Amino acid sequence: MTKSARPTTDSYAETTHLVLPNDTNTLGNLFGGQLLKWLDISCAISAHRHCKRLVVTVAVNHVGFDRPIKLGDFVTIRSHVSRGFNSSMEVWADVWVEDQLTGDKIKANSAIYTFVALDQAGHTCTVPDVVPQDEEEQRRYDGALRRRQLRLILSGKMKAADANELKALFD
Amino acid sequence: MTKSARPTTDSYAETTHLVLPNDTNTLGNLFGGQLLKWLDISCAISAHRHCKRLVVTVAVNHVGFDRPIKLGDFVTIRSHVSRGFNSSMEVWADVWVEDQLTGDKIKANSAIYTFVALDQAGHTCTVPDVVPQDEEEQRRYDGALRRRQLRLILSGKMKAADANELKALFD
Amino acid sequence: MTKSARPTTDSYAETTHLVLPNDTNTLGNLFGGQLLKWLDISCAISAHRHCKRLVVTVAVNHVGFDRPIKLGDFVTIRSHVSRGFNSSMEVWADVWVEDQLTGDKIKANSAIYTFVALDQAGHTCTVPDVVPQDEEEQRRYDGALRRRQLRLILSGKMKAADANELKALFD
Amino acid sequence: MTKSARPTTDSYAETTHLVLPNDTNTLGNLFGGQLLKWLDISCAISAHRHCKRLVVTVAVNHVGFDRPIKLGDFVTIRSHVSRGFNSSMEVWADVWVEDQLTGDKIKANSAIYTFVALDQAGHTCTVPDVVPQDEEEQRRYDGALRRRQLRLILSGKMKAADANELKALFD
Amino acid sequence: MTKSARPTTDSYAETTHLVLPNDTNTLGNLFGGQLLKWLDISCAISAHRHCKRLVVTVAVNHVGFDRPIKLGDFVTIRSHVSRGFNSSMEVWADVWVEDQLTGDKIKANSAIYTFVALDQAGHTCTVPDVVPQDEEEQRRYDGALRRRQLRLILSGKMKAADANELKALFD
Amino acid sequence: MTKSARPTTDSYAETTHLVLPNDTNTLGNLFGGQLLKWLDISCAISAHRHCKRLVVTVAVNHVGFDRPIKLGDFVTIRSHVSRGFNSSMEVWADVWVEDQLTGDKIKANSAIYTFVALDQAGHTCTVPDVVPQDEEEQRRYDGALRRRQLRLILSGKMKAADANELKALFD
Repeated sequence: MTKSARPTTDSYAETTHLVLPNDTNTLGNLFGGQLLKWLDISCAISAHRHCKRLVVTVAVNHVGFDRPIKLGDFVTIRSHVSRGFNSSMEVWADVWVEDQLTGDKIKANSAIYTFVALDQAGHTCTVPDVVPQDEEEQRRYDGALRRRQLRLILSGKMKAADANELKALFD
Repeated sequence: MTKSARPTTDSYAETTHLVLPNDTNTLGNLFGGQLLKWLDISCAISAHRHCKRLVVTVAVNHVGFDRPIKLGDFVTIRSHVSRGFNSSMEVWADVWVEDQLTGDKIKANSAIYTFVALDQAGHTCTVPDVVPQDEEEQRRYDGALRRRQLRLILSGKMKAADANELKALFD
Repeated sequence: MTKSARPTTDSYAETTHLVLPNDTNTLGNLFGGQLLKWLDISCAISAHRHCKRLVVTVAVNHVGFDRPIKLGDFVTIRSHVSRGFNSSMEVWADVWVEDQLTGDKIKANSAIYTFVALDQAGHTCTVPDVVPQDEEEQRRYDGALRRRQLRLILSGKMKAADANELKALFD
Repeated sequence: MTKSARPTTDSYAETTHLVLPNDTNTLGNLFGGQLLKWLDISCAISAHRHCKRLVVTVAVNHVGFDRPIKLGDFVTIRSHVSRGFNSSMEVWADVWVEDQLTGDKIKANSAIYTFVALDQAGHTCTVPDVVPQDEEEQRRYDGALRRRQLRLILSGKMKAADANELKALFD
Repeated sequence: MTKSARPTTDSYAETTHLVLPNDTNTLGNLFGGQLLKWLDISCAISAHRHCKRLVVTVAVNHVGFDRPIKLGDFVTIRSHVSRGFNSSMEVWADVWVEDQLTGDKIKANSAIYTFVALDQAGHTCTVPDVVPQDEEEQRRYDGALRRRQLRLILSGKMKAADANELKALFD
Repeated sequence: MTKSARPTTDSYAETTHLVLPNDTNTLGNLFGGQLLKWLDISCAISAHRHCKRLVVTVAVNHVGFDRPIKLGDFVTIRSHVSRGFNSSMEVWADVWVEDQLTGDKIKANSAIYTFVALDQAGHTCTVPDVVPQDEEEQRRYDGALRRRQLRLILSGKMKAADANELKALFD
């Protein structure tokens, strides 16, 4: 029996980090690997809030680093589950950098991770689906199926010919 | 003028880590975010060895976490540049876990990152292309163009209709 | 000239951490010193958002550790500026631990820090006062003056006899 | 039955740290949160040496950051138990920065923490009182009762009207 | 019964690190203590690969820091077991720094560690000897006996008069 | 002109660490590499206190790990300069582990490092010699010359035939 779908608001997670010297590369910018670590934690929190289970990362689907983030910047990560499949969840995270004078937040990155839920014995278990709350979340929900097909093709678990939704993109 | 292509052997990078308590999640397995950080460093070394320039991460294209890695395991990451475009390079990393008794290495993950090369002033600059050294590297070289189209579509910089190589996958 | 007071909502900061092995003491609970470090960062972000200046910690006024926080728990820290004085700000942080099954958040701690604002030359500069948004924030605002007198007495910068608001507590 | 009081010398703990880039904020000074972490460890060692029990932090009563500490400075923390109550101990820590040429140590901060002692089952247990060894330690011993009343008032466990020693400050 | 000797190639371990701000001292060079930590891990991996047992460090015999390593440098550590005794192994590590333009690797340091092998119960157990693969490894193999005598003399476990091979050095 | 010798008391440095999960290996014991890092910092502080100059590690001469140190132990490191040569100093560190019930400190390790002093321009500069304060320190002072000859032989900067003090050991 399917669990009833949950609103994305259930899985919202927000974290603000201050970029310290410890987090920077030799250019004085936030080191990519450090941001990937912070993103992974935020997405894990969202996945857990959605399904109330142990969750583990199974894939990073896409992370784009669109603008450098500097030493001393405040970095806010907001994440939410964008769609639930059988035992896996797609999670989106958006990264905002805060202007130190105006306080405006500028979007610097976004990231897509996939998690699975595990029971106490370590077996995968069913997760609820998601009810998007706005247009952006609806677009992410709709795209999730195509990205999942793509992930399965890339890891050799699905044939391109069977990925109907993905094929439709190119028609 | 185009720089002459370089063999993948020029960009090989290898690193072995011991999984310490510091690197584990609450299940006692290697924490996903920590592995993403190690992968980013190994890929950055490969990208630098290929082009001898400052390099920065612009995207994580795909990372699959196929099997858990445990506290005390030796984790070997091997990376190489799989293809050079104008100023960007696709870099592959493979993750191996070592059996503590037989010494056999079992493949646990693979990852695909994209880096760009920067000159002293911080502007992007041209990078050489790659000469694959075996069949596996040739397959990665051939697939890189499709993945680049996919990355540009995902970040809104290309239209699906223009991604000819990617479309061909579904014909 | 005094800057106009700002609502507490301007300085809200929220961060959720996952307690990893790295963060625990020998009992498997969140190590006090680690929480103090996280609290300091959250309060610094609130202080900065309030005054848009460089800020440095000048005092920890009080932190109570009321219940142990365990390995694997999600810890949410929410902070806001509770009152602005000349160049110093009192900042409150509340710590919540999340029940892994119900998702309920239970309050585990609260903390009071004091920051000052600095200009580019490193001199202290004036900060705006605060407009509380609910009863709780109003109580914190009212108590801040007494706590400031107490801090100045403890550091030998004010005589007990001059601390009128503080004395009134005991009448 | 009460355990016999122990001299403060039993609980002395001393630690010298070198401020590395890892420990600094964006101004190049020792990051407040890092010092709070070091203070917590030094005070825990003092509390343990005093009572030979597992100890956990229950409160930070006061930490004053009087002067900035710079990258490359040697920071010496000295702590001791200043008074024992039923199962709780007040611990003082003094922070000294060392002049790199003369070797003179200048006092930069002081801090007051409260710890409780736990038995194997995790229950609080009785701790010995303290015998101060000089005038400074006697003053800290005398003030500890007032600070404890203050801590209990701040955490809502005592009414101001019952804090006789604290009231006497303002007479 | 003695286990048959193994070629040094069995114990080769290679790791490349990027020197991040986190790893530097106040001169902006790689901090000695950090390099000692990396060396210890690489040598532990070599010792394990040689004997397929739990291994623990029993001594650092010699580490020379011949040239400073800078922020942003790539540091490659290569280690191998140089000789096996009863239950202990001597392990050599060489440290190379990579020229960022030519890609040439310059030798910066070398290090000699000693490890012992432990069985599941924590008792020491026999390890195989080593078959050197080139002249350099043969020299290291030959010198290992003298260094072992020296280590035992320094730790008071052997008398100088009994160290025949070491004495021969000075004849 | 030679600077006048200084008593070892000038260079005493003491630090107590609590072994946290972060510092342990997979056996739950203090990880060798972490202890090497702590030793390096303590010895650097001693070297600096002796000569009031920038100091850098040039060699680890010997570190013996005689007994395992466990999670939750208090580890006290005490170091002092044992002898000054032209621009280099030999520094000894002793490691003590504290019994959690009796408070007795048991010696677990000792270590010998060599540092050089640098002026502002990064050139080596003369350091004062040492005046030992007890028999143990006198023995260390006397042995330092032999260890220095050994270090120079090991790094190829001296011939064994010229190391008169070292040869005398074997007569």
